[in-house]
Amino acid sequence: MSTTANPPHRTAFFVSDRTGITMEMLGRSLLRQFDNLQFNEITIPYIDTPDKAAAAVSEINERAAADGVRPLLLSTFANPSIRAALNSANAFHLDCFGSLIAPLEAELGVTPSPAMGHSHRIGDTADQRRRIDAIRFTLDHDDGISRKNWAQADIILVGVSRSGKTPTCLYLALQYGVCAGNYPLVPEDFARAGLPEQLENLGGKLFGFNIHPERLHQIRSERKPGSRYASLDNCQQEVRQAEALMKREGIPYLDATNKSIEEMAIAVLHHAKLQRKIY
Amino acid sequence: MSTTANPPHRTAFFVSDRTGITMEMLGRSLLRQFDNLQFNEITIPYIDTPDKAAAAVSEINERAAADGVRPLLLSTFANPSIRAALNSANAFHLDCFGSLIAPLEAELGVTPSPAMGHSHRIGDTADQRRRIDAIRFTLDHDDGISRKNWAQADIILVGVSRSGKTPTCLYLALQYGVCAGNYPLVPEDFARAGLPEQLENLGGKLFGFNIHPERLHQIRSERKPGSRYASLDNCQQEVRQAEALMKREGIPYLDATNKSIEEMAIAVLHHAKLQRKIY
Repeated sequence: MSTTANPPHRTAFFVSDRTGITMEMLGRSLLRQFDNLQFNEITIPYIDTPDKAAAAVSEINERAAADGVRPLLLSTFANPSIRAALNSANAFHLDCFGSLIAPLEAELGVTPSPAMGHSHRIGDTADQRRRIDAIRFTLDHDDGISRKNWAQADIILVGVSRSGKTPTCLYLALQYGVCAGNYPLVPEDFARAGLPEQLENLGGKLFGFNIHPERLHQIRSERKPGSRYASLDNCQQEVRQAEALMKREGIPYLDATNKSIEEMAIAVLHHAKLQRKIY
Repeated sequence: MSTTANPPHRTAFFVSDRTGITMEMLGRSLLRQFDNLQFNEITIPYIDTPDKAAAAVSEINERAAADGVRPLLLSTFANPSIRAALNSANAFHLDCFGSLIAPLEAELGVTPSPAMGHSHRIGDTADQRRRIDAIRFTLDHDDGISRKNWAQADIILVGVSRSGKTPTCLYLALQYGVCAGNYPLVPEDFARAGLPEQLENLGGKLFGFNIHPERLHQIRSERKPGSRYASLDNCQQEVRQAEALMKREGIPYLDATNKSIEEMAIAVLHHAKLQRKIY
């Protein structure tokens, strides 16, 4: 079997003693910097015993043999003995935590606790409850449903149907414990002077999503092809009227076209100066 | 003003040229290793121009003056000129990307692209659509609602009411594009032989959540204090019957007590060997 230094696909293992969420996210960010290479990414979570470490090493070694080139092994282990066990793998091992903790340790003048990584452990019970409450609020106040308790929202997203409000609200609730409701602006809202009844006196909590009509047409056409609702003409009209309403009512808004859910969630947090509720 | 090397609270800035999600997650994981210190954590996203970098430096310097000790500045910048601008801040600057990319660059034998970090950019449109579809599926199949399309689920979580199914499903849909439904096991289900109608012939997709009766009692009591539903006696009975049903039907299950949403989501992915649908 021939081996090459840079095959088109190289395997990258993301290994952690806990969920691996941080490692996977960091690893993907790092590898995206090497745009011209393709990686086969494999996450192995919960490597928290010597037996599991040995099994992970076997899996990595098998892949090294199959690929003909040693995989990348990116790890975040807080436990030094588990970390050391992974060093025996036939891989290029980048110990991400170790590389970053050593300089922090020097600056802070204290030694890190030898505990397992615990970035995604349940926080205190109050934290968990706030998070569940936010999710419940967001589900109850999705798409304008529920006529009550809108005043308890931390933020209320408004915009035309299919502009991305629901996923953004769910992300805000799940990741930040923010009670995020959303209300779809529909033709009846454009006809009326003032805001829909549910949103009266909530001006300071409203935040708008705008979207390019062509993109909206494309999204809606996937759902209801050929409908009046999805037509470019209707999308243009709705977007224009929604923007006029947001301007008239003084609702700040952002363009959601071609933005990911995370990007919109962070933009809302940042622009509306929301505080995260969970830590 | 007196300055000390290790005040009880030290400010840590997480700065990024994009959403800052990766930096914040990594930074929090790193600082959690120093259990005996308290940090005041501030995330500054979207520092992608020299002007914004200068504003961030000012904010950091003001905090350094107020704290009487230089803050920690943890950054993930792909853009070297923005990264360099932050070096002028009165802070201990740990360039997380730079520290990790240099060894990767040497191993891979290629230079990283000078593009901005783009770990949370929208992927291709198909990716985004799969994600939105999964969220829609999950909302439509939350709490046993909808009597149709259960066969399109990638996974269906079952367990007693308030065992954590809904948040876990939403996390799986948002972060991994997994179509996750959930069905609450209620007393009528325990009385019947076999599975509820919606779940018939879906055995391979079912995954159960178990929970300690005391914890369930505590959670339910926050919602409906003093109710029969929340009583410890009833919780013990439901949990016992749910476990018996899962065993009888051969449904694999995990204990959700004291687990975070992320921990349960990753456990489900891992144990049910689900594939992520988005990249």
